[in-house]
Amino acid sequence: MTGVTASDGPAASAQGAPRRRGRPPRTESAGTRDRILDAAREQFSARGYEKTSVRGIAKAAGVDSALVHHYFGTKERVFEAAVEVAFGPVLDERDSVLEGPLDEVGERMTRMIVGLWENPVTRAPLLAIVRSAVNNDAAAAVFRRLVASQLLRRVAGQLDRPDAELRAELAAAQLVGVAMIRYVIRVEPLASADPEDIVRRVAPVVQGHLTGG
Amino acid sequence: MTGVTASDGPAASAQGAPRRRGRPPRTESAGTRDRILDAAREQFSARGYEKTSVRGIAKAAGVDSALVHHYFGTKERVFEAAVEVAFGPVLDERDSVLEGPLDEVGERMTRMIVGLWENPVTRAPLLAIVRSAVNNDAAAAVFRRLVASQLLRRVAGQLDRPDAELRAELAAAQLVGVAMIRYVIRVEPLASADPEDIVRRVAPVVQGHLTGG
Repeated sequence: MTGVTASDGPAASAQGAPRRRGRPPRTESAGTRDRILDAAREQFSARGYEKTSVRGIAKAAGVDSALVHHYFGTKERVFEAAVEVAFGPVLDERDSVLEGPLDEVGERMTRMIVGLWENPVTRAPLLAIVRSAVNNDAAAAVFRRLVASQLLRRVAGQLDRPDAELRAELAAAQLVGVAMIRYVIRVEPLASADPEDIVRRVAPVVQGHLTGG
Repeated sequence: MTGVTASDGPAASAQGAPRRRGRPPRTESAGTRDRILDAAREQFSARGYEKTSVRGIAKAAGVDSALVHHYFGTKERVFEAAVEVAFGPVLDERDSVLEGPLDEVGERMTRMIVGLWENPVTRAPLLAIVRSAVNNDAAAAVFRRLVASQLLRRVAGQLDRPDAELRAELAAAQLVGVAMIRYVIRVEPLASADPEDIVRRVAPVVQGHLTGG
Protein backbone atom coordinates (compact mmCIF):
# COMPACT_ATOMS: atom_id res chain seq x y z
CA MET A 1 0.00 0.00 0.00
CA THR A 2 1.13 3.50 -0.72
CA GLY A 3 0.13 6.38 1.51
CA VAL A 4 -2.19 9.20 0.60
CA THR A 5 -0.28 12.06 2.20
CA ALA A 6 0.87 15.01 0.15
CA SER A 7 4.53 14.12 0.35
CA ASP A 8 4.39 10.96 -1.69
CA GLY A 9 1.52 12.02 -3.93
CA PRO A 10 1.89 13.46 -7.39
CA ALA A 11 2.89 16.91 -6.11
CA ALA A 12 6.48 16.77 -7.24
CA SER A 13 5.72 15.71 -10.77
CA ALA A 14 2.80 18.13 -11.06
CA GLN A 15 5.00 21.02 -9.98
CA GLY A 16 8.07 20.00 -11.88
CA ALA A 17 6.65 19.23 -15.29
CA PRO A 18 3.66 21.38 -16.15
CA ARG A 19 4.17 20.86 -19.88
CA ARG A 20 4.14 17.12 -19.74
CA ARG A 21 0.68 16.99 -21.29
CA GLY A 22 -1.13 19.06 -23.88
CA ARG A 23 0.39 20.28 -27.09
CA PRO A 24 4.16 20.02 -27.32
CA PRO A 25 5.68 23.39 -26.49
CA ARG A 26 6.94 25.49 -29.35
CA THR A 27 10.55 26.25 -28.58
CA GLU A 28 10.18 29.95 -29.16
CA SER A 29 6.99 30.61 -27.25
CA ALA A 30 6.67 27.78 -24.75
CA GLY A 31 7.32 30.20 -21.89
CA THR A 32 4.50 32.50 -22.91
CA ARG A 33 2.02 29.71 -23.48
CA ASP A 34 2.85 28.19 -20.10
CA ARG A 35 2.55 31.55 -18.40
CA ILE A 36 -0.91 32.00 -19.91
CA LEU A 37 -1.91 28.50 -18.80
CA ASP A 38 -0.64 29.10 -15.27
CA ALA A 39 -2.58 32.36 -15.09
CA ALA A 40 -5.67 30.63 -16.50
CA ARG A 41 -5.49 27.88 -13.85
CA GLU A 42 -5.20 30.45 -11.09
CA GLN A 43 -8.07 32.54 -12.42
CA PHE A 44 -10.39 29.59 -13.00
CA SER A 45 -9.51 28.20 -9.54
CA ALA A 46 -10.12 31.44 -7.72
CA ARG A 47 -13.07 32.82 -9.67
CA GLY A 48 -14.71 29.90 -11.44
CA TYR A 49 -15.40 29.55 -15.15
CA GLU A 50 -18.06 32.19 -15.59
CA LYS A 51 -16.32 35.03 -13.80
CA THR A 52 -13.00 34.38 -15.52
CA SER A 53 -12.36 36.36 -18.71
CA VAL A 54 -9.74 36.04 -21.44
CA ARG A 55 -8.84 39.64 -20.66
CA GLY A 56 -8.32 38.81 -16.97
CA ILE A 57 -6.14 35.82 -17.85
CA ALA A 58 -4.08 37.95 -20.22
CA LYS A 59 -3.62 40.64 -17.59
CA ALA A 60 -2.52 38.10 -14.95
CA ALA A 61 -0.06 36.56 -17.43
CA GLY A 62 1.27 39.98 -18.42
CA VAL A 63 0.40 39.56 -22.11
CA ASP A 64 -2.06 41.04 -24.56
CA SER A 65 -5.50 39.42 -24.85
CA ALA A 66 -4.81 38.85 -28.55
CA LEU A 67 -2.01 36.48 -27.60
CA VAL A 68 -4.39 34.37 -25.50
CA HIS A 69 -6.75 34.17 -28.47
CA HIS A 70 -3.80 33.36 -30.72
CA TYR A 71 -2.72 30.37 -28.64
CA PHE A 72 -6.08 29.04 -27.52
CA GLY A 73 -8.98 30.64 -29.39
CA THR A 74 -11.99 30.90 -27.08
CA LYS A 75 -12.30 30.95 -23.29
CA GLU A 76 -13.70 27.41 -23.43
CA ARG A 77 -10.51 26.24 -25.16
CA VAL A 78 -8.28 27.98 -22.59
CA PHE A 79 -10.30 26.26 -19.90
CA GLU A 80 -9.98 22.89 -21.58
CA ALA A 81 -6.21 23.32 -21.97
CA ALA A 82 -5.87 24.40 -18.33
CA VAL A 83 -7.98 21.45 -17.19
CA GLU A 84 -5.90 19.07 -19.31
CA VAL A 85 -2.74 20.27 -17.56
CA ALA A 86 -4.43 20.05 -14.15
CA PHE A 87 -5.78 16.65 -15.09
CA GLY A 88 -2.33 15.39 -16.06
CA PRO A 89 -1.56 13.82 -12.67
CA VAL A 90 -4.91 12.00 -12.78
CA LEU A 91 -4.12 10.56 -16.19
CA ASP A 92 -0.60 9.64 -15.09
CA GLU A 93 -1.97 7.75 -12.10
CA ARG A 94 -4.81 6.27 -14.13
CA ASP A 95 -2.44 3.86 -15.79
CA SER A 96 -1.17 2.55 -12.47
CA VAL A 97 -4.79 2.22 -11.33
CA LEU A 98 -5.53 0.11 -14.38
CA GLU A 99 -2.50 -2.10 -13.84
CA GLY A 100 -2.45 -4.70 -11.07
CA PRO A 101 -4.97 -7.20 -9.77
CA LEU A 102 -8.61 -6.47 -10.60
CA ASP A 103 -9.71 -7.34 -7.07
CA GLU A 104 -7.70 -4.39 -5.73
CA VAL A 105 -8.69 -1.83 -8.37
CA GLY A 106 -11.17 -0.26 -5.92
CA GLU A 107 -8.42 0.49 -3.45
CA ARG A 108 -6.08 1.83 -6.14
CA MET A 109 -8.82 4.10 -7.52
CA THR A 110 -9.80 5.34 -4.05
CA ARG A 111 -6.16 6.02 -3.11
CA MET A 112 -5.60 7.92 -6.33
CA ILE A 113 -8.61 10.20 -5.86
CA VAL A 114 -8.09 10.79 -2.11
CA GLY A 115 -4.38 11.40 -2.76
CA LEU A 116 -5.09 13.98 -5.46
CA TRP A 117 -7.56 15.83 -3.22
CA GLU A 118 -5.26 15.65 -0.17
CA ASN A 119 -2.46 17.27 -2.13
CA PRO A 120 -2.89 21.09 -2.19
CA VAL A 121 -1.14 21.30 -5.57
CA THR A 122 -3.67 19.05 -7.26
CA ARG A 123 -6.64 20.01 -5.07
CA ALA A 124 -6.87 23.60 -6.31
CA PRO A 125 -7.38 22.71 -9.98
CA LEU A 126 -9.76 19.85 -9.10
CA LEU A 127 -11.81 22.32 -7.09
CA ALA A 128 -11.84 24.66 -10.06
CA ILE A 129 -13.01 21.87 -12.36
CA VAL A 130 -15.83 20.86 -10.01
CA ARG A 131 -16.95 24.44 -9.35
CA SER A 132 -16.95 25.26 -13.03
CA ALA A 133 -18.62 22.03 -14.17
CA VAL A 134 -21.44 22.47 -11.66
CA ASN A 135 -22.23 25.97 -12.86
CA ASN A 136 -21.53 26.05 -16.56
CA ASP A 137 -22.53 23.79 -19.43
CA ALA A 138 -19.34 24.34 -21.41
CA ALA A 139 -17.25 23.41 -18.38
CA ALA A 140 -19.50 20.41 -17.71
CA ALA A 141 -18.83 19.24 -21.27
CA VAL A 142 -15.07 19.44 -20.61
CA PHE A 143 -15.57 17.45 -17.42
CA ARG A 144 -17.58 14.79 -19.25
CA ARG A 145 -14.98 14.56 -21.98
CA LEU A 146 -12.03 14.21 -19.61
CA VAL A 147 -13.42 12.32 -16.65
CA ALA A 148 -15.89 10.10 -18.47
CA SER A 149 -13.90 9.38 -21.61
CA GLN A 150 -10.33 9.46 -20.35
CA LEU A 151 -10.83 7.89 -16.96
CA LEU A 152 -14.11 6.03 -16.41
CA ARG A 153 -14.32 4.34 -19.80
CA ARG A 154 -10.78 3.10 -19.37
CA VAL A 155 -11.64 1.66 -15.97
CA ALA A 156 -14.83 0.16 -17.45
CA GLY A 157 -12.75 -1.41 -20.22
CA GLN A 158 -11.02 -3.58 -17.64
CA LEU A 159 -14.23 -5.00 -16.24
CA ASP A 160 -15.53 -7.10 -19.12
CA ARG A 161 -19.19 -6.72 -18.14
CA PRO A 162 -22.13 -5.32 -20.11
CA ASP A 163 -22.90 -2.75 -17.39
CA ALA A 164 -19.23 -1.80 -16.94
CA GLU A 165 -19.67 1.93 -17.65
CA LEU A 166 -22.55 2.28 -15.23
CA ARG A 167 -20.50 0.43 -12.59
CA ALA A 168 -17.53 2.74 -13.15
CA GLU A 169 -19.77 5.80 -12.82
CA LEU A 170 -21.39 4.61 -9.59
CA ALA A 171 -17.90 3.95 -8.19
CA ALA A 172 -16.88 7.43 -9.31
CA ALA A 173 -20.06 8.81 -7.72
CA GLN A 174 -18.93 7.53 -4.32
CA LEU A 175 -15.57 9.25 -4.75
CA VAL A 176 -17.05 12.47 -6.16
CA GLY A 177 -19.45 12.60 -3.23
CA VAL A 178 -16.64 12.15 -0.70
CA ALA A 179 -14.74 14.96 -2.42
CA MET A 180 -17.83 17.19 -2.34
CA ILE A 181 -18.61 16.63 1.34
CA ARG A 182 -15.01 16.53 2.61
CA TYR A 183 -13.15 19.02 0.47
CA VAL A 184 -15.72 21.30 -1.17
CA ILE A 185 -18.53 21.81 1.35
CA ARG A 186 -16.40 20.59 4.30
CA VAL A 187 -18.96 18.86 6.50
CA GLU A 188 -17.61 17.47 9.78
CA PRO A 189 -16.59 14.85 10.84
CA LEU A 190 -15.74 13.73 7.28
CA ALA A 191 -13.82 16.96 6.60
CA SER A 192 -11.31 16.12 9.36
CA ALA A 193 -11.28 12.32 9.13
CA ASP A 194 -7.97 10.51 8.65
CA PRO A 195 -7.41 9.89 4.91
CA GLU A 196 -6.41 6.29 5.66
CA ASP A 197 -9.69 5.76 7.50
CA ILE A 198 -11.56 7.10 4.46
CA VAL A 199 -9.67 4.76 2.13
CA ARG A 200 -10.39 1.83 4.44
CA ARG A 201 -14.12 2.57 4.45
CA VAL A 202 -14.59 3.65 0.85
CA ALA A 203 -12.30 1.32 -1.13
CA PRO A 204 -14.49 -1.79 -0.56
CA VAL A 205 -17.54 0.16 -1.78
CA VAL A 206 -15.72 1.26 -4.93
CA GLN A 207 -14.53 -2.32 -5.46
CA GLY A 208 -18.09 -3.59 -4.95
CA HIS A 209 -19.47 -1.26 -7.60
CA LEU A 210 -16.79 -2.30 -10.07
CA THR A 211 -16.71 -6.07 -9.62
CA GLY A 212 -19.41 -7.01 -7.08
CA GLY A 213 -22.26 -9.46 -7.74
CA MET B 1 -41.64 -0.43 -1.95
CA THR B 2 -42.77 2.93 -3.22
CA GLY B 3 -41.79 4.22 -6.66
CA VAL B 4 -39.48 7.09 -7.40
CA THR B 5 -41.46 8.72 -10.20
CA ALA B 6 -42.54 12.32 -10.02
CA SER B 7 -46.23 11.55 -9.63
CA ASP B 8 -46.02 10.03 -6.18
CA GLY B 9 -43.17 12.16 -4.94
CA PRO B 10 -43.48 15.23 -2.77
CA ALA B 11 -44.45 17.46 -5.72
CA ALA B 12 -48.04 18.04 -4.69
CA SER B 13 -47.26 19.08 -1.16
CA ALA B 14 -44.29 21.20 -2.26
CA GLN B 15 -46.46 23.08 -4.72
CA GLY B 16 -49.51 23.33 -2.55
CA ALA B 17 -48.07 24.51 0.75
CA PRO B 18 -45.01 26.70 0.31
CA ARG B 19 -45.56 28.31 3.71
CA ARG B 20 -45.53 25.08 5.63
CA ARG B 21 -42.02 25.81 6.94
CA GLY B 22 -40.21 28.92 8.03
CA ARG B 23 -41.72 31.74 10.03
CA PRO B 24 -45.50 31.69 10.35
CA PRO B 25 -47.01 34.05 7.79
CA ARG B 26 -48.30 37.40 8.99
CA THR B 27 -51.90 37.59 7.89
CA GLU B 28 -51.52 40.96 6.27
CA SER B 29 -48.31 40.37 4.36
CA ALA B 30 -48.05 36.62 3.84
CA GLY B 31 -48.68 37.06 0.12
CA THR B 32 -45.82 39.51 -0.27
CA ARG B 33 -43.37 37.45 1.75
CA ASP B 34 -44.23 34.33 -0.27
CA ARG B 35 -43.92 36.24 -3.53
CA ILE B 36 -40.43 37.38 -2.48
CA LEU B 37 -39.48 33.82 -1.50
CA ASP B 38 -40.77 32.43 -4.81
CA ALA B 39 -38.79 35.05 -6.72
CA ALA B 40 -35.71 34.31 -4.60
CA ARG B 41 -35.92 30.59 -5.32
CA GLU B 42 -36.21 31.25 -9.04
CA GLN B 43 -33.31 33.70 -9.05
CA PHE B 44 -31.01 31.49 -6.95
CA SER B 45 -31.91 28.47 -9.12
CA ALA B 46 -31.30 30.20 -12.40
CA ARG B 47 -28.32 32.38 -11.51
CA GLY B 48 -26.70 30.86 -8.43
CA TYR B 49 -25.99 32.56 -5.13
CA GLU B 50 -23.31 34.97 -6.16
CA LYS B 51 -25.02 36.42 -9.21
CA THR B 52 -28.34 36.85 -7.43
CA SER B 53 -28.94 40.24 -5.81
CA VAL B 54 -31.55 41.50 -3.36
CA ARG B 55 -32.42 44.11 -5.96
CA GLY B 56 -32.97 41.42 -8.61
CA ILE B 57 -35.18 39.42 -6.27
CA ALA B 58 -37.20 42.51 -5.42
CA LYS B 59 -37.64 43.35 -9.10
CA ALA B 60 -38.78 39.80 -9.95
CA ALA B 61 -41.24 39.88 -7.05
CA GLY B 62 -42.53 43.32 -8.06
CA VAL B 63 -41.66 44.94 -4.74
CA ASP B 64 -39.16 47.49 -3.47
CA SER B 65 -35.73 46.24 -2.32
CA ALA B 66 -36.42 47.77 1.08
CA LEU B 67 -39.26 45.31 1.56
CA VAL B 68 -36.91 42.35 0.94
CA HIS B 69 -34.54 43.76 3.55
CA HIS B 70 -37.48 44.35 5.89
CA TYR B 71 -38.60 40.72 5.74
CA PHE B 72 -35.26 38.96 5.53
CA GLY B 73 -32.34 41.27 6.26
CA THR B 74 -29.35 40.20 4.17
CA LYS B 75 -29.05 38.17 0.96
CA GLU B 76 -27.69 35.25 2.99
CA ARG B 77 -30.88 35.24 5.06
CA VAL B 78 -33.09 35.35 1.96
CA PHE B 79 -31.10 32.40 0.64
CA GLU B 80 -31.46 30.49 3.87
CA ALA B 81 -35.22 31.10 3.95
CA ALA B 82 -35.56 30.04 0.30
CA VAL B 83 -33.49 26.92 0.95
CA GLU B 84 -35.58 26.08 4.01
CA VAL B 85 -38.72 26.17 1.89
CA ALA B 86 -37.04 24.12 -0.84
CA PHE B 87 -35.72 21.75 1.78
CA GLY B 88 -39.19 21.26 3.29
CA PRO B 89 -39.98 18.12 1.27
CA VAL B 90 -36.63 16.59 2.34
CA LEU B 91 -37.41 17.22 6.00
CA ASP B 92 -40.95 15.90 5.55
CA GLU B 93 -39.61 12.67 4.05
CA ARG B 94 -36.78 12.47 6.56
CA ASP B 95 -39.17 11.37 9.25
CA SER B 96 -40.45 8.48 7.14
CA VAL B 97 -36.82 7.54 6.37
CA LEU B 98 -36.09 7.41 10.08
CA GLU B 99 -39.16 5.28 10.80
CA GLY B 100 -39.23 1.60 9.89
CA PRO B 101 -36.72 -1.24 10.12
CA LEU B 102 -33.07 -0.21 10.44
CA ASP B 103 -31.98 -2.84 7.93
CA GLU B 104 -33.97 -1.06 5.20
CA VAL B 105 -32.96 2.50 6.06
CA GLY B 106 -30.48 2.48 3.14
CA GLU B 107 -33.23 1.81 0.66
CA ARG B 108 -35.55 4.41 2.20
CA MET B 109 -32.80 7.04 2.16
CA THR B 110 -31.81 6.21 -1.45
CA ARG B 111 -35.45 6.31 -2.62
CA MET B 112 -35.99 9.65 -0.91
CA ILE B 113 -32.96 11.29 -2.54
CA VAL B 114 -33.48 9.77 -5.99
CA GLY B 115 -37.19 10.66 -5.79
CA LEU B 116 -36.46 14.29 -4.91
CA TRP B 117 -33.99 14.61 -7.80
CA GLU B 118 -36.30 12.83 -10.26
CA ASN B 119 -39.08 15.28 -9.50
CA PRO B 120 -38.63 18.52 -11.50
CA VAL B 121 -40.38 20.54 -8.78
CA THR B 122 -37.85 19.54 -6.12
CA ARG B 123 -34.87 19.14 -8.47
CA ALA B 124 -34.61 22.83 -9.36
CA PRO B 125 -34.11 24.07 -5.79
CA LEU B 126 -31.76 21.16 -4.99
CA LEU B 127 -29.69 22.13 -8.01
CA ALA B 128 -29.63 25.70 -6.78
CA ILE B 129 -28.47 24.60 -3.33
CA VAL B 130 -25.67 22.45 -4.75
CA ARG B 131 -24.53 25.10 -7.24
CA SER B 132 -24.49 27.77 -4.57
CA ALA B 133 -22.85 25.63 -1.87
CA VAL B 134 -20.03 24.63 -4.22
CA ASN B 135 -19.23 28.22 -5.10
CA ASN B 136 -19.90 30.29 -2.04
CA ASP B 137 -18.92 29.93 1.60
CA ALA B 138 -22.09 31.50 2.98
CA ALA B 139 -24.19 29.11 0.91
CA ALA B 140 -21.97 26.18 1.98
CA ALA B 141 -22.64 27.12 5.60
CA VAL B 142 -26.39 26.98 4.94
CA PHE B 143 -25.91 23.56 3.33
CA ARG B 144 -23.92 22.31 6.31
CA ARG B 145 -26.52 23.61 8.73
CA LEU B 146 -29.47 22.07 6.91
CA VAL B 147 -28.11 18.84 5.44
CA ALA B 148 -25.66 17.94 8.17
CA SER B 149 -27.63 19.06 11.21
CA GLN B 150 -31.21 18.46 10.08
CA LEU B 151 -30.72 15.30 8.09
CA LEU B 152 -27.46 13.43 8.62
CA ARG B 153 -27.25 13.81 12.39
CA ARG B 154 -30.81 12.57 12.69
CA VAL B 155 -29.96 9.52 10.61
CA ALA B 156 -26.79 9.02 12.66
CA GLY B 157 -28.86 9.21 15.83
CA GLN B 158 -30.62 5.99 14.81
CA LEU B 159 -27.42 4.02 14.41
CA ASP B 160 -26.12 3.79 17.97
CA ARG B 161 -22.47 3.53 16.97
CA PRO B 162 -19.51 5.77 17.87
CA ASP B 163 -18.73 6.46 14.19
CA ALA B 164 -22.39 7.06 13.28
CA GLU B 165 -21.93 10.57 11.88
CA LEU B 166 -19.05 9.53 9.65
CA ARG B 167 -21.13 6.58 8.42
CA ALA B 168 -24.08 8.85 7.64
CA GLU B 169 -21.81 11.22 5.72
CA LEU B 170 -20.22 8.47 3.64
CA ALA B 171 -23.70 7.19 2.81
CA ALA B 172 -24.70 10.73 1.88
CA ALA B 173 -21.51 11.01 -0.20
CA GLN B 174 -22.66 8.11 -2.39
CA LEU B 175 -26.01 9.83 -2.95
CA VAL B 176 -24.51 13.29 -3.48
CA GLY B 177 -22.11 11.79 -6.03
CA VAL B 178 -24.92 10.08 -7.93
CA ALA B 179 -26.81 13.38 -7.98
CA MET B 180 -23.69 15.20 -9.25
CA ILE B 181 -22.93 12.74 -12.05
CA ARG B 182 -26.53 12.00 -13.08
CA TYR B 183 -28.37 15.29 -12.60
CA VAL B 184 -25.78 18.06 -12.45
CA ILE B 185 -22.97 17.10 -14.85
CA ARG B 186 -25.12 14.50 -16.68
CA VAL B 187 -22.57 11.85 -17.59
CA GLU B 188 -23.94 8.90 -19.61
CA PRO B 189 -24.98 6.13 -19.08
CA LEU B 190 -25.83 7.12 -15.49
CA ALA B 191 -27.72 10.22 -16.65
CA SER B 192 -30.24 8.05 -18.54
CA ALA B 193 -30.30 4.98 -16.30
CA ASP B 194 -33.63 3.74 -14.93
CA PRO B 195 -34.18 5.23 -11.45
CA GLU B 196 -35.20 1.80 -10.13
CA ASP B 197 -31.93 0.34 -11.40
CA ILE B 198 -30.05 3.07 -9.56
CA VAL B 199 -31.96 2.38 -6.34
CA ARG B 200 -31.27 -1.35 -6.70
CA ARG B 201 -27.53 -0.76 -7.11
CA VAL B 202 -27.04 2.09 -4.65
CA ALA B 203 -29.35 1.21 -1.73
CA PRO B 204 -27.18 -1.72 -0.54
CA VAL B 205 -24.12 0.54 -0.56
CA VAL B 206 -25.91 3.18 1.51
CA GLN B 207 -27.12 0.47 3.88
CA GLY B 208 -23.57 -0.91 4.14
CA HIS B 209 -22.18 2.47 5.12
CA LEU B 210 -24.86 2.95 7.77
CA THR B 211 -24.99 -0.47 9.40
CA GLY B 212 -22.28 -2.66 7.80
CA GLY B 213 -19.48 -4.35 9.70
